[in-house]
Amino acid sequence: MRRENLIRVSILGATGYSGGELLRLLLKDKGVKIQHLTSESSPGSSVDSVHPALRGMLTHRFESLNVPLIAKDSDLVFSCYPAGAGISPNARFVKAGVKVIDLSADFRLPSAQLYKKWYKLPHTAPALLKKAVYGLPEYFRSQIAEASLIANPGCYATAALLAALPLVNKGVIDPHSLIIDAKSGVSGAGKKLTLPYMFGEVDENFQAYAIASHRHQPEMEQIIRRVAKTSATVTFSPHLVPMNRGILSVLYATLKKPLSLRDIRSLYLRAYEGEPFVRILPEGELPQTKNVAYSNYCDIGITADPRTKRVIVLSAIDNLVKGAAGQAIQNMNICFHRPEREGLV
Amino acid sequence: MRRENLIRVSILGATGYSGGELLRLLLKDKGVKIQHLTSESSPGSSVDSVHPALRGMLTHRFESLNVPLIAKDSDLVFSCYPAGAGISPNARFVKAGVKVIDLSADFRLPSAQLYKKWYKLPHTAPALLKKAVYGLPEYFRSQIAEASLIANPGCYATAALLAALPLVNKGVIDPHSLIIDAKSGVSGAGKKLTLPYMFGEVDENFQAYAIASHRHQPEMEQIIRRVAKTSATVTFSPHLVPMNRGILSVLYATLKKPLSLRDIRSLYLRAYEGEPFVRILPEGELPQTKNVAYSNYCDIGITADPRTKRVIVLSAIDNLVKGAAGQAIQNMNICFHRPEREGLV
Amino acid sequence: MRRENLIRVSILGATGYSGGELLRLLLKDKGVKIQHLTSESSPGSSVDSVHPALRGMLTHRFESLNVPLIAKDSDLVFSCYPAGAGISPNARFVKAGVKVIDLSADFRLPSAQLYKKWYKLPHTAPALLKKAVYGLPEYFRSQIAEASLIANPGCYATAALLAALPLVNKGVIDPHSLIIDAKSGVSGAGKKLTLPYMFGEVDENFQAYAIASHRHQPEMEQIIRRVAKTSATVTFSPHLVPMNRGILSVLYATLKKPLSLRDIRSLYLRAYEGEPFVRILPEGELPQTKNVAYSNYCDIGITADPRTKRVIVLSAIDNLVKGAAGQAIQNMNICFHRPEREGLV
Amino acid sequence: MRRENLIRVSILGATGYSGGELLRLLLKDKGVKIQHLTSESSPGSSVDSVHPALRGMLTHRFESLNVPLIAKDSDLVFSCYPAGAGISPNARFVKAGVKVIDLSADFRLPSAQLYKKWYKLPHTAPALLKKAVYGLPEYFRSQIAEASLIANPGCYATAALLAALPLVNKGVIDPHSLIIDAKSGVSGAGKKLTLPYMFGEVDENFQAYAIASHRHQPEMEQIIRRVAKTSATVTFSPHLVPMNRGILSVLYATLKKPLSLRDIRSLYLRAYEGEPFVRILPEGELPQTKNVAYSNYCDIGITADPRTKRVIVLSAIDNLVKGAAGQAIQNMNICFHRPEREGLV
Repeated sequence: MRRENLIRVSILGATGYSGGELLRLLLKDKGVKIQHLTSESSPGSSVDSVHPALRGMLTHRFESLNVPLIAKDSDLVFSCYPAGAGISPNARFVKAGVKVIDLSADFRLPSAQLYKKWYKLPHTAPALLKKAVYGLPEYFRSQIAEASLIANPGCYATAALLAALPLVNKGVIDPHSLIIDAKSGVSGAGKKLTLPYMFGEVDENFQAYAIASHRHQPEMEQIIRRVAKTSATVTFSPHLVPMNRGILSVLYATLKKPLSLRDIRSLYLRAYEGEPFVRILPEGELPQTKNVAYSNYCDIGITADPRTKRVIVLSAIDNLVKGAAGQAIQNMNICFHRPEREGLV
Repeated sequence: MRRENLIRVSILGATGYSGGELLRLLLKDKGVKIQHLTSESSPGSSVDSVHPALRGMLTHRFESLNVPLIAKDSDLVFSCYPAGAGISPNARFVKAGVKVIDLSADFRLPSAQLYKKWYKLPHTAPALLKKAVYGLPEYFRSQIAEASLIANPGCYATAALLAALPLVNKGVIDPHSLIIDAKSGVSGAGKKLTLPYMFGEVDENFQAYAIASHRHQPEMEQIIRRVAKTSATVTFSPHLVPMNRGILSVLYATLKKPLSLRDIRSLYLRAYEGEPFVRILPEGELPQTKNVAYSNYCDIGITADPRTKRVIVLSAIDNLVKGAAGQAIQNMNICFHRPEREGLV
Repeated sequence: MRRENLIRVSILGATGYSGGELLRLLLKDKGVKIQHLTSESSPGSSVDSVHPALRGMLTHRFESLNVPLIAKDSDLVFSCYPAGAGISPNARFVKAGVKVIDLSADFRLPSAQLYKKWYKLPHTAPALLKKAVYGLPEYFRSQIAEASLIANPGCYATAALLAALPLVNKGVIDPHSLIIDAKSGVSGAGKKLTLPYMFGEVDENFQAYAIASHRHQPEMEQIIRRVAKTSATVTFSPHLVPMNRGILSVLYATLKKPLSLRDIRSLYLRAYEGEPFVRILPEGELPQTKNVAYSNYCDIGITADPRTKRVIVLSAIDNLVKGAAGQAIQNMNICFHRPEREGLV
Repeated sequence: MRRENLIRVSILGATGYSGGELLRLLLKDKGVKIQHLTSESSPGSSVDSVHPALRGMLTHRFESLNVPLIAKDSDLVFSCYPAGAGISPNARFVKAGVKVIDLSADFRLPSAQLYKKWYKLPHTAPALLKKAVYGLPEYFRSQIAEASLIANPGCYATAALLAALPLVNKGVIDPHSLIIDAKSGVSGAGKKLTLPYMFGEVDENFQAYAIASHRHQPEMEQIIRRVAKTSATVTFSPHLVPMNRGILSVLYATLKKPLSLRDIRSLYLRAYEGEPFVRILPEGELPQTKNVAYSNYCDIGITADPRTKRVIVLSAIDNLVKGAAGQAIQNMNICFHRPEREGLV
């Protein structure tokens, strides 16, 4: 690729785990040029000092946010700000014609009211909510290709939706029977300095949190409704696994009428035929988080409990890759008409 | 306590994790005298060589099984043999008037047919199945006190049943809506030398196994039927957590009619009032495995999802203590009319 | 034991890991009565809320420090304050005739100057430094029995000194050839809320810190000088292991003249003959931290490299037990003329 | 790169950790074509079934070793056989003009006698020992470029030698004062199915093994002698860290005459100037294994203890990358005159 064809990207809020993962992946990508990296907490400091694994691989320093400068220098910004902080700057980037892939939840929900309810924040750019495209390529690929603002899905939502949508779409399950019992490595919580994420609290421990009250629950429900055009309620239970990376999501749903495991499996095989990053496992195999670690794959395993008419679908992703930075790059590839696996395999 | 009042105990198959945990607990118990420790794989070897943490704490050597000798010297045997291996010797111990607490599954199911179906082994003492008492003190205390043969419950079954039985007993949930999504540390699998339990396979990995086909599923269903006198079907999904000890079990069930969280909670508070080893957590708190590690407690946290009429009950135990050796000692205490917390707190 | 013979103890700064470990151990000790638990950060809160594993085991609430009240009610205080905070109150307890076992470093070094140099704090009770006894029972047992103030040794120092002192004492090694390369679980750092101790930073990571500049280095040197009456310099390198508990210390030293492994071993066997908590491993065996986890044992393994005239001595302890709370209780037992293993095995 | 310019490679013994890591790296390398993958244990099985993370990325099946076929189809073979098994086939590949990079220890030591002493195996191709080049690019780059047989260094030896050689080369330390205290993640042991590598034995445990008797000790000594042209003795102590990947090696050596830290550091800066994969950390920083995980970097941190005239040099690598597969690819790049970072960054 000629130098003038490089995609010029900047990362907002690049000191956290998502920003670090984007850098890890983009540094291997010969079609991308990294322009600006912003940090509100440590402007001026070197990338090394925050991401020591990247020492010697790039010479950038973190900068304060300067929208006009970054807009001039970038074709695309990845926004990794915490909830709320990126709404206004991202609106300005969109206005300036810069593509935005927002890794936060700011543009995932369909209305300012719902956003306020779950994130306890006013939404300062409600008009953009309609314009934003939900960045799950397997379901919104053509819209992503045209989007100016992409809401990159939540990590739990990615794993759960890839498991749920083939079933709901085909109307084979009761959409109110959905239970998602998901387990995540600790990096999913970001680099927060709080007691529950200290090594001494997490190591050799397993716990649930935010049962039926996690912010990815309304995100899942909205997308199910949008895609499958049916109402749905999800009981979502997240858990914290003593490991760094990986989500295993287990979906339970009740079949409307009996279906063989073979039939359920072929439904998934068709739904994801040709998808570059979804792997339907052979019958009898179950996904493991280590098999998708550091990759953009989602592994899906399908089982059934005929006695109870339940289908049980397991999906595994790396929460920092398919659940964040990798999916963001997949979306970038779609936006810029590159092969979808570019920079990801 | 005078020396002649000591309970004389022997442990069959004492080289595994359950045997080691029994030794750890019994060595602190001044009311117990450890007599014989058997091992088919390493008779003659010192306890140190197998359980190096116990070095200097006892001078026993592992012996081959000698039923008459052990029967003469013991008031009680703890049987930690793998499935099938202890049926005949334990039948002989019972006949000889020695109390048996069997930590295997050999006497947990109600019939030889069911045992054969799930354990792929003929049951050589089917008559004893009727005599055996299921060693879950919270529900079978008075029978345990009189029993000659106690089937110590499975680790998953212990956690799941303590969560499920108050609901099923009171008839407030649909007994066919039960889903148990349980997560266990690796010691639950015993000291098996197989690839899936190598450090390299388990560390930084999370996976499910034996979905809707685990042997503790029929055990749970049988006990629910027996206690609640109602049929019930359970979808049981076990998982492997990259840690050594601990089970977190998450139960999902649909309420027959709406009940407030307060009402559900008081149902549990009454069910376990006065129980020495069940702790109902305050509203809003969820159990964590590390809070019950190395202890015989079961912590229970109760939540509800009113939108879906579901109740979600979480229970945490140490799989080697309340899920095996500790519960066995609790059963011994009941049999020998000692305070139930003796040797356990 | 009659109630009036109970040792009445209080714990200052009881919310941290050492305080929690003291509580875990003391709650099993029928000869001890827990009186007051102080916390400057969370007075008034329940023990449950800070140490949820102890729920239901005691009903105390954390209190602000009230020296006269605690002095009246206690025979002994365990002081778990961070460096500096306990100097003045402990001086007052000593004056009031209450025995003090200080788990901090405040009274371990021989002079206020040295304390200031390493801890960057003025020492407000320098006179007491002379009166304080270093609480390593294997070397100071008779002084501990008479002491009013016991400086409980540092965790690294305990492991290193138990390995080093037999060699230095007998003059068989060059006392300036000592290198201690020690590795500790994360609980050794206490409950500090800092980025380096977050799960995401420690998990799947191994690192050294404070090479040749850790505060336990002068502590080790002082005690070697005091016990062996020889000057000695130690190069001490601590490391952080991705686990919660345990220290493995590896000592390298050069023999003054050739000695067989057998001779070196017998030197250790004699040095620790009859010691209740030191286990010299058989030739060819090396200590592992898991074999001493949750126990007050120190396991010592001895090897030699005849080609280089080096002796290599490995010692393993649980940093929270023999390295803190367990050793404090061992010291309490000595002070109050109880069997030394009481409450510890 | 045009298709006809692809380097055609095959991997012998490709089912283990090194083979899997080679595949992970080579699959991203557009300049390489993977031809044959051999396995003696599972010929015929798919790569997926052994390395499930690679599902969908290649369609090869494991084959039995067929030297003529592989020689015809390959420019280079990576040999990942266990000690001894690859000697004869590799001799045949060399004879057939195929470059061999041997990841085993078979060609690392200079004589058949020494090989026999440490590996307890006869060496069936002693003449080739002289022809083999030790594949540490930082010291043998020009010979590697011409070699027909490259002995890829041991993981511990790589980390230790990169730390030791600048000091020994410049003659600033006593070459008999070298102590290497190294700590490795568990993957270093390979996929051996033995009790010490079970999760239950490694997790929350830390231990040393093979003190002063590990096979990488003579490897280190030989290379030090060869490079620095001085005799040297190393006391080498390996340890097992409860994590999967990474080695931290800590070197202790006594300076012949005093040198400032600045002088020592500049010695390293000069030694590794321009090296693509060695990063000398800024003064005051110490390497951590997680900063080199999944990368071919070796991070080196330098400290000194002027009181004892010791220099302490820490080096961190990923044992599967710079310690095995990555270094093998670096060697391949040198052999085939590709940029050295190709396929590695």
